[in-house]
Amino acid sequence: MRILVSNDDGIFAPGIKILAEKLATEHEVYVIAPDRERSANGHALTLNKPLRAEEVNIFDGVKFACHVNGTPADCVKLAIGAILEEMPDMVISGINRGQNMGTDIMYSGTVSAAMEGTILGIPSIALSLASFSDVHYETGAEFALKLANELATKELPSKTLLNVNIPAIPADQVKGVKITKLGVHKYTDIFEKRTDLRGKHYYWFAGESLEYQDEEDTDIVAVKKGYISVTPIHYDLTNYEFLNDLKNWDVNIKDKIEVKK
Amino acid sequence: MRILVSNDDGIFAPGIKILAEKLATEHEVYVIAPDRERSANGHALTLNKPLRAEEVNIFDGVKFACHVNGTPADCVKLAIGAILEEMPDMVISGINRGQNMGTDIMYSGTVSAAMEGTILGIPSIALSLASFSDVHYETGAEFALKLANELATKELPSKTLLNVNIPAIPADQVKGVKITKLGVHKYTDIFEKRTDLRGKHYYWFAGESLEYQDEEDTDIVAVKKGYISVTPIHYDLTNYEFLNDLKNWDVNIKDKIEVKK
Repeated sequence: MRILVSNDDGIFAPGIKILAEKLATEHEVYVIAPDRERSANGHALTLNKPLRAEEVNIFDGVKFACHVNGTPADCVKLAIGAILEEMPDMVISGINRGQNMGTDIMYSGTVSAAMEGTILGIPSIALSLASFSDVHYETGAEFALKLANELATKELPSKTLLNVNIPAIPADQVKGVKITKLGVHKYTDIFEKRTDLRGKHYYWFAGESLEYQDEEDTDIVAVKKGYISVTPIHYDLTNYEFLNDLKNWDVNIKDKIEVKK
Repeated sequence: MRILVSNDDGIFAPGIKILAEKLATEHEVYVIAPDRERSANGHALTLNKPLRAEEVNIFDGVKFACHVNGTPADCVKLAIGAILEEMPDMVISGINRGQNMGTDIMYSGTVSAAMEGTILGIPSIALSLASFSDVHYETGAEFALKLANELATKELPSKTLLNVNIPAIPADQVKGVKITKLGVHKYTDIFEKRTDLRGKHYYWFAGESLEYQDEEDTDIVAVKKGYISVTPIHYDLTNYEFLNDLKNWDVNIKDKIEVKK
């Protein structure tokens, strides 16, 4: 397979190197990733400045690698729209330093790179390590290769990608793999207010992760117990269940709009 | 009600002024919005630089307004976590210059401001005008007030917000309101490659909106026909329908991970 690898920690992060080189043992790998860390970038696109791609030679066994002065979504869009001569068969994003579970994924550049692949019609996987220490990326890389090979033989539903979180433990201590739903990952939304040297105020976001009791079948609980979590996520955000209820609200009648005479 | 108003076009955009001043005729309105345009910013958060909030007096009837050097999601988080003394009863984002329908919403700062409100537990609405001309924002503002008053008497399901798109026509030409699902809004993913004065290449994203035949009950078709579309969207991205199928994939067995002995 031709596999496009990207991430949001930047091309020089350890997680993408271990991932790309592991995938390259069996596949044709292209790495097109941001030139620096782009964490918490969400699914942002760069429309108001030019994008530049610069080749780098830092990966063993990889066909081609370059970094881009843009977001993870930019990298995947640019790779497929302008840099790669052929469409990749798969997009794999990661391995992110830090988990992307529950509500995290709304802010996650790692997931957004894989989601951009999905939007462009390519089977895609996002991988994150549930730790901010650079430990045991190899567990995620081993699993990524297994999952990519399995995905190559299966079909994902429309608009759906696989979001994987890896416990930060050696592969031989992993208890197994769980198919999960997104849990609820809560943060304290605290800002620290400081005063600068000219007497003006500024704020730092100081949110901290809260432990959260959650249901058994969530990604958060699975990873906490030492399992790899695989969550199918899709980008059709319509709340179909609520559609009919909403039709009973008092908004869907023309004379409720103040018609100007 | 205390209503927090934000957007992604920036606090000086015409859409937010018309919206905030209309809401202020019946409610206590606080405007906390980016200091400049933040389009296509997705659900990004600013973690690596300090945020500054500066008061402005440009809105009639509004209790308090300030701009922030951050993204739409930053504005809502900072407003609720640090600036406002009491929780708002509602978050309303817009009125965006340009539609946010179908896949657009993945990239939309307008939707992300409302989604941040939802994540923080506050009923929220995102509003966009289906035009890049500054015309007929008043249609959206009229409808926003109606919808906000209706929402105040109802309850949204967990994790759900209302995404509204307004046709760019006078209020008396609007055909009515349709409750819709997200359609598919396709773009050509074209990059223009140019060469700078030192012989280096750079790329501009030149994607253009494609007309797209879509199903009758989508936001895209409704707005095209002159209706206001209201789509309930939620941020639980788990693809529940696919969960059981995925359990049959050959990844959920421990010995499939290459255990290092």
